Amino acid sequence: MVRHNLEYPKDVHNTVNRYKHQAVYSLTTIHTIINTTPVLHVSFHPSPTDPFPVILPLIGQMGSFSRPSASISEPLDLYLHGYVSSRLMNVSRSSSSPGLPVCIAASKVDGLVLTLTPNSHNYNYRSAVLFGHATLVTDLDEKLWAMELITNSVVPDRWRHTRIPPNAGEMQSTQILKVKIDSGSAKVREGVPNDEMCDLGDQKVLDTVWTGVLPLSEQFGEPVPGPYNIVKKVPEHVTEYKEMMNKMNWEYAEAAARKDAPVKRKDDGDEE
Amino acid sequence: MVRHNLEYPKDVHNTVNRYKHQAVYSLTTIHTIINTTPVLHVSFHPSPTDPFPVILPLIGQMGSFSRPSASISEPLDLYLHGYVSSRLMNVSRSSSSPGLPVCIAASKVDGLVLTLTPNSHNYNYRSAVLFGHATLVTDLDEKLWAMELITNSVVPDRWRHTRIPPNAGEMQSTQILKVKIDSGSAKVREGVPNDEMCDLGDQKVLDTVWTGVLPLSEQFGEPVPGPYNIVKKVPEHVTEYKEMMNKMNWEYAEAAARKDAPVKRKDDGDEE
Repeated sequence: MVRHNLEYPKDVHNTVNRYKHQAVYSLTTIHTIINTTPVLHVSFHPSPTDPFPVILPLIGQMGSFSRPSASISEPLDLYLHGYVSSRLMNVSRSSSSPGLPVCIAASKVDGLVLTLTPNSHNYNYRSAVLFGHATLVTDLDEKLWAMELITNSVVPDRWRHTRIPPNAGEMQSTQILKVKIDSGSAKVREGVPNDEMCDLGDQKVLDTVWTGVLPLSEQFGEPVPGPYNIVKKVPEHVTEYKEMMNKMNWEYAEAAARKDAPVKRKDDGDEE
Repeated sequence: MVRHNLEYPKDVHNTVNRYKHQAVYSLTTIHTIINTTPVLHVSFHPSPTDPFPVILPLIGQMGSFSRPSASISEPLDLYLHGYVSSRLMNVSRSSSSPGLPVCIAASKVDGLVLTLTPNSHNYNYRSAVLFGHATLVTDLDEKLWAMELITNSVVPDRWRHTRIPPNAGEMQSTQILKVKIDSGSAKVREGVPNDEMCDLGDQKVLDTVWTGVLPLSEQFGEPVPGPYNIVKKVPEHVTEYKEMMNKMNWEYAEAAARKDAPVKRKDDGDEE
């Protein structure tokens, strides 16, 4: 059990220098954003001589193989799903200890914040960034455990409702990257619009510009059975997940649209 | 007018080596994904001695200042919105010609593709990656043009419905990065589930595992007026955008869930 709200220590990589009032270092917040975002963006240097970093969209999930009961609030590793021949896997395989340096980002937009001036426009959003070192998982038990973790992140409880275990060919063609986390941070904006005093005092502007929030959320539609499906009833692990996520995403965006605007501190600069 | 479907030439950075059947090099497809994604992920090297690349979530839009009437299918620049003090801006400012090498990624998930085995699970998705060189926009006319372009990407026609033009302080505190594009590519998956022949021939598996697509789309809720709003009617540029996007996103995800599955070629490996 975690007694304290653990935070990633601030270092040169994860420290937020702008809009500090929106910065969050809490493991719970950061890990939750990562684990509820369907696509993670993973960046790495393909080679020391290449000027361009590369970003790959990947599926991933945080967890602890050595202590599977660890909660979202505790130190965790990030497991990423990939392919044996892809560039990231090749670079990780040839990368020496402690692994390939990677940056991982996850972002959600919860609403458009429409204000009096273009400059004060904003999003309600949640974004998280992690820095860490990636290595290929070679232990078969850990690999199988991570495959189950990642499949169940697509739809909870999906793994045991499919044809398992993976066969030898599937185990060989799938590769899992494990990222040991060095640091992380998040930025969260929620709340009603806020504008500068000079515009709030301008009656002509107030009379003509509509201000408010347009909530935005990811919503699932009705399940569409595939061409070779013969199971008549959509299983509960699918319908329950759909309903839970639709409700949760909707309620979050609606609540964020009505909260008090974040309070700026003087060194934070413009909010936008 | 563009008579041909222009493509980015394949080079060492943008060539898709895995799931080539899902690779797209068309400017129209790539630019559309970038311009309809609310948050872009931008990666760069903060310094030659830092092992970690950095990813920042930013708002951006593609366009052509020298030829504003250019269509989405033509060569365009990417304009990113940022802040004078942020790391990316500082690095771009000190970066020598042709600018700071950056990688930009945009991804959308249109549905969860639930199949017979964990390995064949997939998303219906659209993702685009661009590589290019970023410089700070110093020309005031171009900067103002890009600010309007970006504001109108949040909600079309929003710019002229707000207090404009930006004042001197706003012009100074806002910085715009212009990315000249070197190359780009996209990957698109749409369609019903597909599984391996060995599982499709296993009656016990077919009898027990539900397969199909759970469509997913970004949906706007009802506009929520802010605390200092006194304009009674939500303006049409907001309501029309909300309705158009909800319908378009919904229809795309629903159609993607019912299309034929992509046809694999032998060198493409597993689909997942």
